[in-house]
Amino acid sequence: MKLYDYWRSSACYRVRIGLNLKNIPYEHICVHLVKDGGQHHKADYKAKNAQGFVPSLELEDGHILTQSMAILEYLDEAYPASPFLPKSPRERAYVRSLANMISADIHPVNNLRILKYLTKQLGVEEDTKTAWYQHWVVEGFNALEQRLGDDPFCYGETPGLADICLIPQVYNAHRFNIDMAPYPKIARINENCLKQDAFQKALPENQPDAE
Amino acid sequence: MKLYDYWRSSACYRVRIGLNLKNIPYEHICVHLVKDGGQHHKADYKAKNAQGFVPSLELEDGHILTQSMAILEYLDEAYPASPFLPKSPRERAYVRSLANMISADIHPVNNLRILKYLTKQLGVEEDTKTAWYQHWVVEGFNALEQRLGDDPFCYGETPGLADICLIPQVYNAHRFNIDMAPYPKIARINENCLKQDAFQKALPENQPDAE
Repeated sequence: MKLYDYWRSSACYRVRIGLNLKNIPYEHICVHLVKDGGQHHKADYKAKNAQGFVPSLELEDGHILTQSMAILEYLDEAYPASPFLPKSPRERAYVRSLANMISADIHPVNNLRILKYLTKQLGVEEDTKTAWYQHWVVEGFNALEQRLGDDPFCYGETPGLADICLIPQVYNAHRFNIDMAPYPKIARINENCLKQDAFQKALPENQPDAE
Repeated sequence: MKLYDYWRSSACYRVRIGLNLKNIPYEHICVHLVKDGGQHHKADYKAKNAQGFVPSLELEDGHILTQSMAILEYLDEAYPASPFLPKSPRERAYVRSLANMISADIHPVNNLRILKYLTKQLGVEEDTKTAWYQHWVVEGFNALEQRLGDDPFCYGETPGLADICLIPQVYNAHRFNIDMAPYPKIARINENCLKQDAFQKALPENQPDAE
């Protein structure tokens, strides 16, 4: 498989963790979001991914999957060992709801294209942009912290879909100087995940295109 | 089942369509997002939904599910008739990727809390807010239109997860005066869906709390 990837993208980071947890080897292909005015905007990449977003996952026969959450569900269906989701529909809904609190309510409002629009189109200053970023993370983490239990991971004894989304979001929270003291459960889960090879190997700074 | 619902919420609209497609009767409980300073902010509602978001779905025994996409996946797993997703992992990934282009990349940046933040915290004018709204819909619809085929629905002969997300987004696009001429495939699918009872019954204006 080939992963069209960028070291700093949270959505790519999720898929890297997912591939590692499933023990699927893959080739990293850098799509640099900054160089050349953004390589994701180029026609040859947009032929693979109509949105011009990373990641895209190219399967062995050339079939291309897009959208990190759809890719993760695919990996879980096509490679059932080390499942990302529990068995019962209710428990699956719980884990997916935690994952979506990040993938639908924190990350989309804070990703690069939004931050760029704030500064370029709306002329927002750096500190106002940072306040925006922090606002949505704090709102999301407050609710997440409440909903988490005392398991070593978001749900149960092994990492799953919610952890795959959480750890890249915590990584970004650190980058944006968010105080993690109010989130002891999130911090504990983050620590437990980062003890695992699958998460370590997926870290932004461990990617070939890291700067 | 009880649906904590607001007529104008796209995420609620999705779940209403989903319940109708599965022929599951439910009780509508209005959580008014404007009245009383927003009923979703009240402690009794936040005890059901830590984020204070609609929808929440209360099952027969009182168990509460949150996050519209997690609820829809739950309904599809717990009520397999009239499936929302195709059978093969690849086709499922395609349909989920279309759904996520809306649920993760258009809707979250355009919902009420974001628009409020733009006007209140950032002091953005009405027309700049509308331009923001339209920008993300147009960007998303451009990519969606490219990825859709010639089926009567987003995928195949029956509506599924992607249609459930698309139709509320088209409804909002109309509200925000987005020109649908560049999107003949989206417009055709919207028309086909709205011929069905499940979609008609779920329309915002057909809800008990519609204004």
